[in-house]
Amino acid sequence: MTEGSGGTIGVGMVGHAFMGAVHSHAWRSAHRFFDLPVVPHLAVLGGRDLGRTKAAAAKFGWASVQTDWRELVNSPDVQVVDICTPGDSHAEIAIAALAAGKHVLCEKPLANTVEEAERMAEAAADASAKGVRSMVAFNYRRVPAIAYARKLITDGRIGTVRHVRAVYLQDWLSDEQAPMTWRLRKDTAGSGALGDLGAHLVDATQYLVGEPLTGVSAVTNTFVHRRPTEDGGGLDDVTVDDAALFLGRFAGGAVASYEATRFALGRKNGMRVEVNGSKGSLAFDFESMNELSFYDGAEGDAAGFRRILVTEPTHPYVGAWWPPGHILGYEHTFTHEVVDFVRAIAEGVDPSPSFADGLRVQRVLAAVEQSANDRSTWTDIPGGAS
Amino acid sequence: MTEGSGGTIGVGMVGHAFMGAVHSHAWRSAHRFFDLPVVPHLAVLGGRDLGRTKAAAAKFGWASVQTDWRELVNSPDVQVVDICTPGDSHAEIAIAALAAGKHVLCEKPLANTVEEAERMAEAAADASAKGVRSMVAFNYRRVPAIAYARKLITDGRIGTVRHVRAVYLQDWLSDEQAPMTWRLRKDTAGSGALGDLGAHLVDATQYLVGEPLTGVSAVTNTFVHRRPTEDGGGLDDVTVDDAALFLGRFAGGAVASYEATRFALGRKNGMRVEVNGSKGSLAFDFESMNELSFYDGAEGDAAGFRRILVTEPTHPYVGAWWPPGHILGYEHTFTHEVVDFVRAIAEGVDPSPSFADGLRVQRVLAAVEQSANDRSTWTDIPGGAS
Amino acid sequence: MTEGSGGTIGVGMVGHAFMGAVHSHAWRSAHRFFDLPVVPHLAVLGGRDLGRTKAAAAKFGWASVQTDWRELVNSPDVQVVDICTPGDSHAEIAIAALAAGKHVLCEKPLANTVEEAERMAEAAADASAKGVRSMVAFNYRRVPAIAYARKLITDGRIGTVRHVRAVYLQDWLSDEQAPMTWRLRKDTAGSGALGDLGAHLVDATQYLVGEPLTGVSAVTNTFVHRRPTEDGGGLDDVTVDDAALFLGRFAGGAVASYEATRFALGRKNGMRVEVNGSKGSLAFDFESMNELSFYDGAEGDAAGFRRILVTEPTHPYVGAWWPPGHILGYEHTFTHEVVDFVRAIAEGVDPSPSFADGLRVQRVLAAVEQSANDRSTWTDIPGGAS
Amino acid sequence: MTEGSGGTIGVGMVGHAFMGAVHSHAWRSAHRFFDLPVVPHLAVLGGRDLGRTKAAAAKFGWASVQTDWRELVNSPDVQVVDICTPGDSHAEIAIAALAAGKHVLCEKPLANTVEEAERMAEAAADASAKGVRSMVAFNYRRVPAIAYARKLITDGRIGTVRHVRAVYLQDWLSDEQAPMTWRLRKDTAGSGALGDLGAHLVDATQYLVGEPLTGVSAVTNTFVHRRPTEDGGGLDDVTVDDAALFLGRFAGGAVASYEATRFALGRKNGMRVEVNGSKGSLAFDFESMNELSFYDGAEGDAAGFRRILVTEPTHPYVGAWWPPGHILGYEHTFTHEVVDFVRAIAEGVDPSPSFADGLRVQRVLAAVEQSANDRSTWTDIPGGAS
Repeated sequence: MTEGSGGTIGVGMVGHAFMGAVHSHAWRSAHRFFDLPVVPHLAVLGGRDLGRTKAAAAKFGWASVQTDWRELVNSPDVQVVDICTPGDSHAEIAIAALAAGKHVLCEKPLANTVEEAERMAEAAADASAKGVRSMVAFNYRRVPAIAYARKLITDGRIGTVRHVRAVYLQDWLSDEQAPMTWRLRKDTAGSGALGDLGAHLVDATQYLVGEPLTGVSAVTNTFVHRRPTEDGGGLDDVTVDDAALFLGRFAGGAVASYEATRFALGRKNGMRVEVNGSKGSLAFDFESMNELSFYDGAEGDAAGFRRILVTEPTHPYVGAWWPPGHILGYEHTFTHEVVDFVRAIAEGVDPSPSFADGLRVQRVLAAVEQSANDRSTWTDIPGGAS
Repeated sequence: MTEGSGGTIGVGMVGHAFMGAVHSHAWRSAHRFFDLPVVPHLAVLGGRDLGRTKAAAAKFGWASVQTDWRELVNSPDVQVVDICTPGDSHAEIAIAALAAGKHVLCEKPLANTVEEAERMAEAAADASAKGVRSMVAFNYRRVPAIAYARKLITDGRIGTVRHVRAVYLQDWLSDEQAPMTWRLRKDTAGSGALGDLGAHLVDATQYLVGEPLTGVSAVTNTFVHRRPTEDGGGLDDVTVDDAALFLGRFAGGAVASYEATRFALGRKNGMRVEVNGSKGSLAFDFESMNELSFYDGAEGDAAGFRRILVTEPTHPYVGAWWPPGHILGYEHTFTHEVVDFVRAIAEGVDPSPSFADGLRVQRVLAAVEQSANDRSTWTDIPGGAS
Repeated sequence: MTEGSGGTIGVGMVGHAFMGAVHSHAWRSAHRFFDLPVVPHLAVLGGRDLGRTKAAAAKFGWASVQTDWRELVNSPDVQVVDICTPGDSHAEIAIAALAAGKHVLCEKPLANTVEEAERMAEAAADASAKGVRSMVAFNYRRVPAIAYARKLITDGRIGTVRHVRAVYLQDWLSDEQAPMTWRLRKDTAGSGALGDLGAHLVDATQYLVGEPLTGVSAVTNTFVHRRPTEDGGGLDDVTVDDAALFLGRFAGGAVASYEATRFALGRKNGMRVEVNGSKGSLAFDFESMNELSFYDGAEGDAAGFRRILVTEPTHPYVGAWWPPGHILGYEHTFTHEVVDFVRAIAEGVDPSPSFADGLRVQRVLAAVEQSANDRSTWTDIPGGAS
Repeated sequence: MTEGSGGTIGVGMVGHAFMGAVHSHAWRSAHRFFDLPVVPHLAVLGGRDLGRTKAAAAKFGWASVQTDWRELVNSPDVQVVDICTPGDSHAEIAIAALAAGKHVLCEKPLANTVEEAERMAEAAADASAKGVRSMVAFNYRRVPAIAYARKLITDGRIGTVRHVRAVYLQDWLSDEQAPMTWRLRKDTAGSGALGDLGAHLVDATQYLVGEPLTGVSAVTNTFVHRRPTEDGGGLDDVTVDDAALFLGRFAGGAVASYEATRFALGRKNGMRVEVNGSKGSLAFDFESMNELSFYDGAEGDAAGFRRILVTEPTHPYVGAWWPPGHILGYEHTFTHEVVDFVRAIAEGVDPSPSFADGLRVQRVLAAVEQSANDRSTWTDIPGGAS
């Protein structure tokens, strides 16, 4: 491969807020713990405000800045474009980057609409044919406990999946005086808890089960309709859902229940998934992200949910880190994402989750919104039938 | 009052299977721990098979037996009729007993159909006017942790309720070779996991929130359609749901999620309820029934879900039992039920939950089935609007 | 056998406080759930105050009362004597009862001194030769989870035991104004947390490991030296330990750590035992007494502590009770004790734990006190070497 | 201050194994998340084998290497010396570095003997007078949950401390075939579980309570006396303890229990501390290092141990990281250590824990060994009386 020079690969990242901070850490640190075929070079940081972008670049360790994302995408120093902006700009940037022959890592959800996501998936397919790679940043697949859960399922340890229940519980909007953000505006965020939190649930469960959802029935709710503006100068309308609940069916016959909310007081980052199969069950809670619960039905009267501390060198990704029992954190999932992405680029294979996977999630989110707007009527998901 | 003679009140109980065993214990034991105005006398045990009923009466401590429930209901030795039969006979027995001027305790769900439940509620209202009491045996209201949770809610400790999530997870049908029982036949049981487990969730959450559900959207599923017959001589059709999932809204605006299943491998009696309010949250799991989790949002950076061991003498019902930290069990909830029922009779007030409460649950169950049969379309619950 | 008449066995119980209440329940209820060869008859309740004893007898269901324990012991209606008094009277009553040919169930700790315990064990051995049975009421051996833990150990599931750590944490003396009780006076109680709580730990761990402790090193402490008298009329001296901590060694080489305290604020009945072996580990907490944690080292990277809900019909004692996941309580352990005791009497075998077991515990307690009084110097336990 | 040039401070680190890896990460990353007055420059990595040291330097990001630690200590590029070697070389390197005017961060335990630790503490005191700083790397003080626990204690939230119980449970030696390492040789490691794990417990509890231990009674044990050599060519003697258990007293009257072991099968990094006070209690487990349990006795019948997720921006160190509920990992504690150390250097104050704190720990470890060798006799700790 001819990526970068001298064994490095140039990265250009657009956006430098929360996601920008954690992605920067991943790009900086991945080769310090994992053997990478090429070392990421933090070449260009993109942002609209020059001063703030320069400050972020200095803080996060980027070599240069760029206020025009088109320049960044086309910079010869950049072989990888990492998109950390709100969802409304994903499609335009990603498609331009792929057209410029740049590998693209795009934050989730892939887009704000199915139409955008379809165009992105199409562009990704075209690019792949030319050896240009793309990945959507559903980082929870890179939680060692979730990757290990997937392994147990593919190894047949839980048998046929019958039940999936998944909730993502946060509480930062529980306070009615919490101010507006771009995440509460449909224009920028596309949806509320649904796209922000529900998207993680949909991707993680489709990944774990290894099947698509085929249909949903949904309810969404907005508890607080007007909030103080960011500058405190008045009130503004919340135009997204505060909570989204939906039932679903998987292609293989499992039934599923989902809930995403920012109003579950006391739950800070409660992304929880439980899967019941015919031979065993699995349960996970992101607030205890180093643990996986596993029930093996074959154990007779000694059966019980085991708390597996997923910190052994034999567990996915863990060998690169610390001894058993030494906890990994949130940002490690992004480091793992970078590792897998860089390796896929070097090996010339398509990484996963693909933009097509991102599109599949988008279609579920759209079906949820459609059902919620149509008296919760069951809504099929195109392409959901396996 | 003129109940019984010599300070006792005669009880006649119909049915002597699982529920009969635990009710017998409660009738025998209540006055040993609680001060009761009258002492229950286990007068007559009713059952269809004379030999088996006699054996059960000897085992459980009943003074006599009766194979014809009409005789039992009309016996002068009986002032209270306790109905522990499958749901298809509840209406007939209860209405006859009330007509005969007997107080009635009826197992849940109240009936197999809304129509039956309506007739029962009507009979109960008529009887109440004459001083005859009735109660439906939703025993989970008498779990000290749930009664205490209700107190915290009525005290305003969690503010306005926004979210309810309730699951009842068992796994005894997970094995495809588990044989048929009356619980798997629509004729006798009315429904499957929905009426058996979901009914508890609906009553417990309506009780906790203090509001009715106003509508639902539902999915039901049968995973195993044919099972070995009880005598092992062949296969028989399962005619009820194995799992029921539904979304709902409460009159006050809270959104809710429910799931009842007998296929959650590894979950033995996982009746779990979480309620999130504007000021606090509560969580309960029947597998740890002596514990209540409570989050008080006012505690600032020292806030966290507290594991309250609901075994203090100041907690509901607990003063009659053991010192703090000494665990109570499943059957205690029935003892509490008997205590409250006998006291209400003696005090001349209507106990709770009433047959009207039981009817309200029945209407929710019926709406769930209707929605599940109509593409999950949102289905209003009559009388649900507050 | 010739116990009682008409298939019953007459019980005389001395003492009717906390232990009397729970023993009464066990004697009343055992045959309602278990098949017993003879049915206990609650014949005589003994107590010093006639009025209070009569009230207790009425409440608990005893047929008659007796203020002189010698009369009770010699009553022809009594075949079993159950001793629920403070420790200072155990020896006298038990020895007299055994001499009168009565089977004896004696509350723990067996006695207040080793000398008393030795005489009791001797009397029990003599009585056994004549077919008279005795048992000391270490009821925690009858917690299903602990009985099941013992089974896993004897089945070799955890290999050679290397570590035992056991704590019994309560907090009812944490309040410095909590009043005096007989439990805080050396005269009546023998010792404080050591005999009340530590005795349970010593018996339970010797039972689980299947070996005696051979020596200890100890520290005891009294945090509050004077407390309000029971009648509030002044202050009185606390003459026992508030907390006892000790290290020990088992005959097979395992090292052990113990702590018993009534000052662990927030811990209500935290009797916890963990055992680490060469192949597996076990952990138990009485506050979650229906659960056993089990780690099987053979499970490779899927290993983890399993939460076994010890409520399956195949678990010890559980088959007589409710379906899986339906919680048992504190008093069930006493019911199991009565079941095993009555069956041993009927079968003509010595039940366990024997008075010799009780003596073994007493010797450990004495060694603890001796070490604590001698600068924690290692103190051997007579008979401790296997 | 005149540290480094251009706002950087040069670091020289000796050792590049496990601790070297995690310290490197901390030196590299601290200024990316925290505002530091000077930016650490990873100037020189020291190691005995040139090839392996060069490889480590490339991996971890060090600018140069040095096989002679004396050269490193005296290098003009180095203002801070970070000692990550086994304990037998700590004293020599640290004293030389301080003499050369270099700030010193030294891994724990401070030394292998009290005599060495005394010389180090003396050298540190001398250096401090000249503005040269030193710190011992008890990183657990920088776990946000432990720092927050300390705050709750100093705020008086738990009142007077009565009980401390602390265990550090690992299992990596449970397999009798696990090979030798420097950690199992007295020459290099000083002691076994005692110095490696017990030292953390002693420092953490003295820090939390804010008092020194005044005496101990101890038992140590070696379960496996011979193990395969590193090269597999034979067997070698284990010359340290596999487990150390001890009881202690704090200056203020609290009693304490400690256990450190590498044979607690199934416990991977179970560093657990519980503190019971007169008003409240605290509990911590490193395997769930983002959580702190807090019991507030003032809450009446709503009291219970709260699980505080110590991930709020108001919690110690957390504001620099992610939103609430996003888990921090093991290495974050080292990053916090570097932050506090660098800030102390810049501000011209002595950081904590000091070498004097390290000496205090060493004296406790020595007393433990002495007691264990003297029939567990109570052994006073010099300077332990407050």
